[in-house]
Amino acid sequence: MKMAILGYGVVGSGAYEVLTKAGYPVKRVLDIRPHAELGDVLTMNFDDILHDDEIGIVAEAIGGLSASYAFVSKALAAGKHVVTSNKHLVCHYYRELRELAAKNGVMLRFTSSAGGGIPWLYNLKRCVRCDRIEKVMGILNGTTNFILDAMIRDGRRFDEALSEAQRLGYAEANPSADIDGNDVARKIAISANIAFNTVVSEEMVLTFGLRNFRKSDLAYVSEKFGRTVRYLGYGARVGEGIALFVEPTLILPDSLEANVGKNNNMISLFGEVVGRLAFYGQGAGKYPTGLSLAQDMIDIYNGATAYLYEPEEVTVDNGAYRRKYFIRTKAQTPFDFYDHVDRVGDVSYIVTREISVAEMHDAAHLLLEEDADSFFAGFEPQPD
Amino acid sequence: MKMAILGYGVVGSGAYEVLTKAGYPVKRVLDIRPHAELGDVLTMNFDDILHDDEIGIVAEAIGGLSASYAFVSKALAAGKHVVTSNKHLVCHYYRELRELAAKNGVMLRFTSSAGGGIPWLYNLKRCVRCDRIEKVMGILNGTTNFILDAMIRDGRRFDEALSEAQRLGYAEANPSADIDGNDVARKIAISANIAFNTVVSEEMVLTFGLRNFRKSDLAYVSEKFGRTVRYLGYGARVGEGIALFVEPTLILPDSLEANVGKNNNMISLFGEVVGRLAFYGQGAGKYPTGLSLAQDMIDIYNGATAYLYEPEEVTVDNGAYRRKYFIRTKAQTPFDFYDHVDRVGDVSYIVTREISVAEMHDAAHLLLEEDADSFFAGFEPQPD
Repeated sequence: MKMAILGYGVVGSGAYEVLTKAGYPVKRVLDIRPHAELGDVLTMNFDDILHDDEIGIVAEAIGGLSASYAFVSKALAAGKHVVTSNKHLVCHYYRELRELAAKNGVMLRFTSSAGGGIPWLYNLKRCVRCDRIEKVMGILNGTTNFILDAMIRDGRRFDEALSEAQRLGYAEANPSADIDGNDVARKIAISANIAFNTVVSEEMVLTFGLRNFRKSDLAYVSEKFGRTVRYLGYGARVGEGIALFVEPTLILPDSLEANVGKNNNMISLFGEVVGRLAFYGQGAGKYPTGLSLAQDMIDIYNGATAYLYEPEEVTVDNGAYRRKYFIRTKAQTPFDFYDHVDRVGDVSYIVTREISVAEMHDAAHLLLEEDADSFFAGFEPQPD
Repeated sequence: MKMAILGYGVVGSGAYEVLTKAGYPVKRVLDIRPHAELGDVLTMNFDDILHDDEIGIVAEAIGGLSASYAFVSKALAAGKHVVTSNKHLVCHYYRELRELAAKNGVMLRFTSSAGGGIPWLYNLKRCVRCDRIEKVMGILNGTTNFILDAMIRDGRRFDEALSEAQRLGYAEANPSADIDGNDVARKIAISANIAFNTVVSEEMVLTFGLRNFRKSDLAYVSEKFGRTVRYLGYGARVGEGIALFVEPTLILPDSLEANVGKNNNMISLFGEVVGRLAFYGQGAGKYPTGLSLAQDMIDIYNGATAYLYEPEEVTVDNGAYRRKYFIRTKAQTPFDFYDHVDRVGDVSYIVTREISVAEMHDAAHLLLEEDADSFFAGFEPQPD
């Protein structure tokens, strides 16, 4: 059985290098640009891969939705195993790609779509076979972690840290997907699908960005609460449903996440049997992510089999997950869940009672209307 | 294909519960004591398992060397896959059990023998397929980490913390395997065998215990160097060989290991391609370790195949790995590698120049002859 890679960008070329160096048979690489080093391996015509019966494993690293969806669905329908690093694709078409794979008796793997080089989804899936996952939680975006680390350790302002991230290639010219939380929301949706054996979409994940976080917020939460800040995604069983949200979070300085520096990621699962397992590493980059894509391909090459279950219908309920929040705003209208308000000039620093994630995100919309720079962060509870 | 478990102690009974709850076919459990809840599944005769052709996967959770070796080698020779949590067995008989498995075309898995509930060896092995591992390093013993955490966070003395660990069942009445480092040395030998595709034995691992660590040492290294302490095992490529050692280590308070609390473990691999990956969780206990044993069994049940390579001969050379050391001793004889000596009463607090691990362990033998309470710890270098 031979392999093909769709897309020779950052991740695709990383996977190609890793696989060929280790001696695995990559027969074809699809790309629209010429790459002399690929010689006859390069093709610009997907049919060369689709109609080649020797090719049994197709890795998609094109990104986006349209071409990737067309190629991946055709490959699955033709009975080829598919591996992808494309979180947008996996998030958007999970139900149908999953069904298409099952119908054709082939595997669909996407470990590198969340956590980059960390074998996160792969180990999560392995755990689900014989444990009940209560919660997944963690640092899933390297850019925002880099920004926080630069602010906390090096005393940078948010805009300085963001510029530095852009200069180093960690953040795009338009950094919205990172700092407004959409990237983490997708990764949480994908993780929740595995953890809770269901199908949720990224729109169900309540998301508050890191965009409005300021050095003065950091100084305040550090001095008043002895807390530091990380940008965390959550998926948690609560009541009969699950909560899915992404928020700046106030954590204790001696928690594991507090010392995750630079653009690294750390993601944890909390299993009924195994307890907490945490996984740390590079959440992005040519070689880490390319390697993770390659690892899924090698698993299939070595004969790994799928352990698919019928997905269960699970209710997403962000009204049931409750915690305290910190809010900084110039908005004047008070909410009845304010527990303590500290005014400094025209700025209010607020601690709420325990309220639900849904209540906080609803309130945030109103706060942002009055003061577009308003910021909030959830209090991660003290461990037992 | 059905499963059998040898031994119904802590780990074996944990695995049995996990497997039966998840619906996997455990046909037989071997134990020398009656267990009413097992009904007809219990046998006291290994031949009932060995000669049962339905049983294709045998998990060994007896511990020790003699019975376990006899049963495991017979099972492999009979063409049954073997999974074990027994670090003593894996360490002592690795070369021959590996060859026996290869010869009979069956798998030998032992993820739960190092790291307890953490899928450490499993992921390490997966990485080795297409990456070059430069170093493995981490907290591999929950008892000593519990003791350090109790001393650092709760201000306990070493003996108080040890008693507490014994009361909670984390440490044996004779705690030597934990606090003198033999347990970690075995886990490092097993990890090195996977990481560097070789066969080393625990005797090659230079080991210095935590036994002589005192509250006053903690206060000194905290005040003078801003360091905290963890008990770490190392396996690292250096020059043409590898270094293997276990030492109390002075680490920075913002390193990942510094916030691993209670009896948890954290183990890292450093790959040329993937960079650092760290794995955190419960390193021992009925359910975490039982689950990990069960996971290896389920992998094989689902058709996992081995990726065995011929082991390479690798030289163990602890003379090539160099770092600075902290020493506390009443011994009077100075060594020429002392860089700074601070005398308080009859106690010398010493910082050495960069010396090799071998030099330090040789010197420690002499220091202990003069002062049996002497203590040393390696300085983990500042990260780049």
